[in-house]
Amino acid sequence: MTVTVIAYHRGPMTRWEPNASGRLTDAALELYSEHGYGATTVAEIAACAGLTERTYFRYFADKREVLFAGAEQLRNLIAGTVQDAPASATPLDALAAGLRAGAAMLQQRRALSIRRQAIIAANPELQERELIKLSSWAATLADVLRRRGTPEPAASLAAEAAMAAFRVAFARWIDAPGEPQLGEMIGESLAQLRAVTAA
Amino acid sequence: MTVTVIAYHRGPMTRWEPNASGRLTDAALELYSEHGYGATTVAEIAACAGLTERTYFRYFADKREVLFAGAEQLRNLIAGTVQDAPASATPLDALAAGLRAGAAMLQQRRALSIRRQAIIAANPELQERELIKLSSWAATLADVLRRRGTPEPAASLAAEAAMAAFRVAFARWIDAPGEPQLGEMIGESLAQLRAVTAA
Repeated sequence: MTVTVIAYHRGPMTRWEPNASGRLTDAALELYSEHGYGATTVAEIAACAGLTERTYFRYFADKREVLFAGAEQLRNLIAGTVQDAPASATPLDALAAGLRAGAAMLQQRRALSIRRQAIIAANPELQERELIKLSSWAATLADVLRRRGTPEPAASLAAEAAMAAFRVAFARWIDAPGEPQLGEMIGESLAQLRAVTAA
Repeated sequence: MTVTVIAYHRGPMTRWEPNASGRLTDAALELYSEHGYGATTVAEIAACAGLTERTYFRYFADKREVLFAGAEQLRNLIAGTVQDAPASATPLDALAAGLRAGAAMLQQRRALSIRRQAIIAANPELQERELIKLSSWAATLADVLRRRGTPEPAASLAAEAAMAAFRVAFARWIDAPGEPQLGEMIGESLAQLRAVTAA
């Protein structure tokens, strides 16, 4: 079998760069893992991806945002699934469906997620950005619940509690050996949440 | 009746400044409210309090931290009350006792809390710092629960859920007219949390 490798990383510059965003993300994760986040420049990331700095800044505002761009897709998937849950679903069941959909996407990106999390854990500035991201997800999910008819403060409380369950499950999933299933871990986390809040 | 006003704000500098920390905090809240956080300097805060910049930096690392110093006292009160709750109390009941103790302290500082919250709401950098503060409280409370014998992930889930209830109640308390009772609002918020997570 003959495998043709298309060496686009070192190819001549063209106006359209195939998968520039993905190549820049891979290059950034590689360099941040190898040399540290602080010691890596945008110029180095672009060079490693065979692209220009100018191309980098067409996709990402700065060297931090390359680590958070994929999160928007994930947020939209989770929020969309909550929105589309049957009207009869309770707020927490609708949130659980959304988080399971997000878990399925993350499961496909386990190696990348582990690498990304190690970079974030090593840098307080990135930890803060991650915290802000997750807090904004809780606000988005509360908003979706309100549009589904859940009143306040139930909407905010359910969204915040579900995000707490997600964070706890995600941390366990990153640290677990082998091929742990994030969706199952989220289910366990939500069951534990129900248990600790049972009157 | 004769009232003697001790004009320490404008008195000569001495080595020991009575209540320097409180005077600097009052001056900072006053100037941040009046001119905005961004437009106020540490030199102006110190001058307004009748103190030197050097004295300011003995108490606070920068112009932001003056808004967060009181939070440590509050965190210690809440964590200490959770720690001292009866061994028979469930994790959420122990947390509720801690939050009620914190609410009693905040109730005495309602005017200051409203003013502080308005400053924070007007500035994204301060909102981030507030978010990080509240996240670190959740980590502290999870730690206290573990020392009381609650295993993970129940400890983290209970602490995060209780902090969500606290945040929701605090926001309602700040916005409510008249003299709303934060302790009661936290109780309502915890009851709503139990309701949304009921299986």
